[in-house]
Amino acid sequence: MKKKTTIGLIQTKVFENQNKNLENSIKKIKNAARRNAKIICLPELFLSPYFCQTENHSKFKLAEKIPGPITNIFCNLAKELSVILMISLFEKKTSGFYHNTSIVINENGKIVSKYRKMHIPDDPGYYEKFYFTPGDLGFKSINTNHGKIGSLVCWDQWFPEAARLTALKGAEILFYPTAIGWHPKERKKFGNSQLNAWITMQRSHAIANGVFVAAINRIGLEKVKNKKIQFWGNSMIIDPSGNIIKQSKSNKEEILICDIDFRKVENTRQHWPFLRDRRIDYYKGLLKNPEDA
Amino acid sequence: MKKKTTIGLIQTKVFENQNKNLENSIKKIKNAARRNAKIICLPELFLSPYFCQTENHSKFKLAEKIPGPITNIFCNLAKELSVILMISLFEKKTSGFYHNTSIVINENGKIVSKYRKMHIPDDPGYYEKFYFTPGDLGFKSINTNHGKIGSLVCWDQWFPEAARLTALKGAEILFYPTAIGWHPKERKKFGNSQLNAWITMQRSHAIANGVFVAAINRIGLEKVKNKKIQFWGNSMIIDPSGNIIKQSKSNKEEILICDIDFRKVENTRQHWPFLRDRRIDYYKGLLKNPEDA
Repeated sequence: MKKKTTIGLIQTKVFENQNKNLENSIKKIKNAARRNAKIICLPELFLSPYFCQTENHSKFKLAEKIPGPITNIFCNLAKELSVILMISLFEKKTSGFYHNTSIVINENGKIVSKYRKMHIPDDPGYYEKFYFTPGDLGFKSINTNHGKIGSLVCWDQWFPEAARLTALKGAEILFYPTAIGWHPKERKKFGNSQLNAWITMQRSHAIANGVFVAAINRIGLEKVKNKKIQFWGNSMIIDPSGNIIKQSKSNKEEILICDIDFRKVENTRQHWPFLRDRRIDYYKGLLKNPEDA
Repeated sequence: MKKKTTIGLIQTKVFENQNKNLENSIKKIKNAARRNAKIICLPELFLSPYFCQTENHSKFKLAEKIPGPITNIFCNLAKELSVILMISLFEKKTSGFYHNTSIVINENGKIVSKYRKMHIPDDPGYYEKFYFTPGDLGFKSINTNHGKIGSLVCWDQWFPEAARLTALKGAEILFYPTAIGWHPKERKKFGNSQLNAWITMQRSHAIANGVFVAAINRIGLEKVKNKKIQFWGNSMIIDPSGNIIKQSKSNKEEILICDIDFRKVENTRQHWPFLRDRRIDYYKGLLKNPEDA
């Protein structure tokens, strides 16, 4: 296992045309690889505008089989560039059954992990429960040649349980492909507080678990009929003490390249030994709902 | 159940003389009550300097029976002022068996809850495992006439599990009596990052659970032989969206008085419905240790 690696987070705008998104992402992946990134992660569902703004049956045609033609493209690319790719896709498992899925492709072009988003939101403008069945594969850590990594997806980032379980399985970097933004009408009143809460939660996962956290968001204003989301960017990498070590702007396409020293994980956990002191003998209530715990 | 209450957090310096600490705390409790606080909380182990800076057998004589002479004083005071008091004590359960305990006394002067600190630190200068057996009563929420409240203690604040379990049991304000500070030698290099991590974790508990969080710390430089801790104050109250609504300085005795509107809990949880989406069917690994999960 290597002691260091370099990761690349690709913060993009997303266009109406899927081929354009595909070309754009391939170009940016190549750019990140040239800059020495060994693990490259793209935002949630980066191949299309965020279709969950409305409940629209016609959008199911965007779903992909895994493996399938789209994953084949990225598998070939990973092999060509000799990098690890983390790719978020609208997965068609079978007829009438769909997931929000993140895969890890290794530097030999093989899909080595599939994670199906476990926590599914349903809020005005984020109608994901309409499209996605909650994940059925549990939480994942993958041992790669460039480090032990875990992939979670967007809404998962509000759940300490998801981060904890992925870290307990061994992951030393938690990746969160994301699609989150402001409702333009709410932005003035709540925008700062919302963005700040989002950042705070991810820093807390780094601290509580002594791991690196990488969040990768899209940017841009996307409109679907009279609905709008201003995706807020702010892709970032957080060290195991909770310090933000790289951060993108809210309105700019950007490729964040960041060196990761895995020795910081062990060092932080020796100085802040939270894993040592968990009271697993008294945590059964975590498997229950409010008032039943 | 009332829809609003007022809480009072007493950020104090602690003196060598226990009687002086007792008098000081009674005076400040009366001050908070005059200012309409209905739930008043003091810092962790506020009756003595933080003796866990060293392992010293003579300090076991500081331990109290609960109920006992000290709790009787606070029970009478709670009744006299008609307030709820949250009091942190070094508890002697029985011969050779001690806890770091927080009690809730209601406005009739009755002890209505006892919480024994579940997560016990052991770090240079914080040798708590020498003094305290980890708690054996689990996590607690108490229905009072002034709101549903939970008491956790200091090191617990680094564990998302503790906050989650207390919230799942119904608590709408999580209180953290605390004794945390800087090692003066480390302060320049790590001080900001440490304080920031501490604040971040508590904000994350508020956000993840949609609850108010109140942290109550001591201030002052305490020396034991060649050991020193500069307690960093920064007592604070955080709303269910993670915003800090009141905060003390790091070097000043202060009584934070804060109005709490419990309707914010329900409102926040409707807008950020995290409790709705927990995957209790996939959380069993939380009852395991690293690599076993």
